[in-house]
Amino acid sequence: MSSKFTCLRSARLAARYPCRRRTFATAASSRADHVRIVEVGPRDGLQNEKQSIPVATKIELVERLARTGLQTIEAGSFVSLKWTPQMANSSEILEHVLRSTPQSPHPITYQWLLPNVKGLDNFLSVLKSHSQAQQDPYPSPPPSPGFDDGPALNTSSQDPNAMPSSSSGAEAMGKPRGASSSTTSPVHELSIFTAATETFTQKNTNCSIAESLKRFEPIMARGKETGLNVRAYISVALGCPYEGPNVDPHKVAELAVSLLEMGANEISVADTTGMGTAPKTLELLKTLNAAGVDKSDLALHFHDTYGQALVNSVVALEHGIRTFDASVSGLGGCPFSPGATGNVATEDMVHCFHSLGLRTGVDMEKLSEVGEWISQQLGRANESRAGKALLAKIRKELLT
Amino acid sequence: MSSKFTCLRSARLAARYPCRRRTFATAASSRADHVRIVEVGPRDGLQNEKQSIPVATKIELVERLARTGLQTIEAGSFVSLKWTPQMANSSEILEHVLRSTPQSPHPITYQWLLPNVKGLDNFLSVLKSHSQAQQDPYPSPPPSPGFDDGPALNTSSQDPNAMPSSSSGAEAMGKPRGASSSTTSPVHELSIFTAATETFTQKNTNCSIAESLKRFEPIMARGKETGLNVRAYISVALGCPYEGPNVDPHKVAELAVSLLEMGANEISVADTTGMGTAPKTLELLKTLNAAGVDKSDLALHFHDTYGQALVNSVVALEHGIRTFDASVSGLGGCPFSPGATGNVATEDMVHCFHSLGLRTGVDMEKLSEVGEWISQQLGRANESRAGKALLAKIRKELLT
Repeated sequence: MSSKFTCLRSARLAARYPCRRRTFATAASSRADHVRIVEVGPRDGLQNEKQSIPVATKIELVERLARTGLQTIEAGSFVSLKWTPQMANSSEILEHVLRSTPQSPHPITYQWLLPNVKGLDNFLSVLKSHSQAQQDPYPSPPPSPGFDDGPALNTSSQDPNAMPSSSSGAEAMGKPRGASSSTTSPVHELSIFTAATETFTQKNTNCSIAESLKRFEPIMARGKETGLNVRAYISVALGCPYEGPNVDPHKVAELAVSLLEMGANEISVADTTGMGTAPKTLELLKTLNAAGVDKSDLALHFHDTYGQALVNSVVALEHGIRTFDASVSGLGGCPFSPGATGNVATEDMVHCFHSLGLRTGVDMEKLSEVGEWISQQLGRANESRAGKALLAKIRKELLT
Repeated sequence: MSSKFTCLRSARLAARYPCRRRTFATAASSRADHVRIVEVGPRDGLQNEKQSIPVATKIELVERLARTGLQTIEAGSFVSLKWTPQMANSSEILEHVLRSTPQSPHPITYQWLLPNVKGLDNFLSVLKSHSQAQQDPYPSPPPSPGFDDGPALNTSSQDPNAMPSSSSGAEAMGKPRGASSSTTSPVHELSIFTAATETFTQKNTNCSIAESLKRFEPIMARGKETGLNVRAYISVALGCPYEGPNVDPHKVAELAVSLLEMGANEISVADTTGMGTAPKTLELLKTLNAAGVDKSDLALHFHDTYGQALVNSVVALEHGIRTFDASVSGLGGCPFSPGATGNVATEDMVHCFHSLGLRTGVDMEKLSEVGEWISQQLGRANESRAGKALLAKIRKELLT
């Protein structure tokens, strides 16, 4: 059996030795058993909301997510307010995270989306102001009591997303954790985005794919200078609203190679339209592999528009992918299919991965509560099936 | 590679030879490539609806479903109206189907749930009345112009669900079919139900599992006498609301063997609570296999309460299962988790299976329209992601 079928092999072993199933969740952390979830709700999720969301709600969302055990959170974007007014408060969110590190059981990596050098300048100026304020004994306005030693730029060679060895199997199984929390300064990363088709790139960023790569060069260079990792999204990798479902996987692979060669630290391959299927996902991953893209440099970003996100995720797991993007309570919607579902719900993905014996470090109950809370705040339906079911079960147990 | 991994092997082949992918859908019908969908919306779906649904709506639902290419529809139940008032009109639905065969591209098998001999008596009396009316030259009230030669009892050894060879690959890919329709009389089957745990059986049917089997004996005997196939549900096979998620798979296998030995023609193994996971599904299927239960005698009935129904279905596909229950637009809800999702949506399942190169005979667009229609009729949310996305895409294309 090919080693690519780790996940179903785990399922088969778990089925064969049911009494030993917990060992998959309680075994010491290793690359094969640990899945890194990138929570994109506060940025990719909220940016499509039509209503104006108070910055306090956005900050509270980030803080609540930090307490669930998630280790990577895409917290905002420094984009043109003309095009994405919902992201107007991202500098305030960054300032808050810098001033008052959100409590979390693990150190957290925050990602910030930047479309161009102007966005990067704005981002870096917030970092710089904070750094100066830290050196000023009488800063005005005064920092909150929770301030620390300033942002931890990612200058070490250590993987900022490595799972601490203290993470328990109980977390992977969704059991409550103790009150321990991290006091380590968060790490910050930059995100950039292009797309797999010319039409989408033109309509989304008003330039060709080649021009979008050109725009990234100074961002990559300054990211390296300042010790900030760079993640690159490739949108519409499994289907384009303008060019249809059959996006050329070789084009995606070519783009991924270019971005990695330019200095990107991770490629998030995004099924923006949810048109991805199991065979297409496998075809794309094989093409990326054949082009020399290492699995550990890839993240998969599925939308559940056609309900296939978890099936596609299992295919990617079997192919060795261990980083997945998701959005709490399925925040995000689908601008290309009004009324349809958007990002896969983090709760559904975590429930699936835990059921396969994989570890995420995320507390399912806490995560489900965040999903319900933000859905209520926004007056929208909670799109997570596992989250709704788990909370309904807990409430029923409390009543009986 | 084990032959159990047909489905992912299909995905891998499709990925390797993308230009040949359509051959999976256009190849001549065979057992391995054809999946039989049992549409349970009109019975399992509607029975949990709180509001009273007009019989005309129920009949129209059955008629609309028949036109989608579905070949098996669970259309109603002859149960105690005290416990399940929503099913009050099942005799009228049966009478309608007998009088006026719903138009359909393939011959249809209708299933009717019966809890006991009284239910069977009521069911058979409707059949008998119709048969007598057919022989009466002046029946009162007069039959509709569409009446035919009476119900076709399943007395032949031919598989009533075999896919006609005229079924085109275009259907499997969701393309519109021609106007051809079946004039063959429908086949009728009986369904009975028990459960995998004593507590659920007591609470649901007020008897022990052994007593429930005893109740089935006369139903099985009369089913055989009248040439009607019998399907047996085993509820809570992958998790019980009273006894928890770890239902003993050996208990399920023992029950399945007993029911088959008693004369059941098919066992529908039901994950009533949606607690099923990929490893548990595989463990159960292996246990059933080890107990001598043939894959072709099994149907899988998944609920999407925790969002895992399609992942579990793919595991079952890989294990060789080719019959799956589903409910259009996810009709049904989950009485054990108020607010949570119930039956997996037929549209999501069909979209998934078609994407894997399997054939269902179902027209995705027509099915999605039925899902939207019944959701509107009931004033409920359409729980099918694929259905909503497909209709949104079609509407957008019509506007541009």
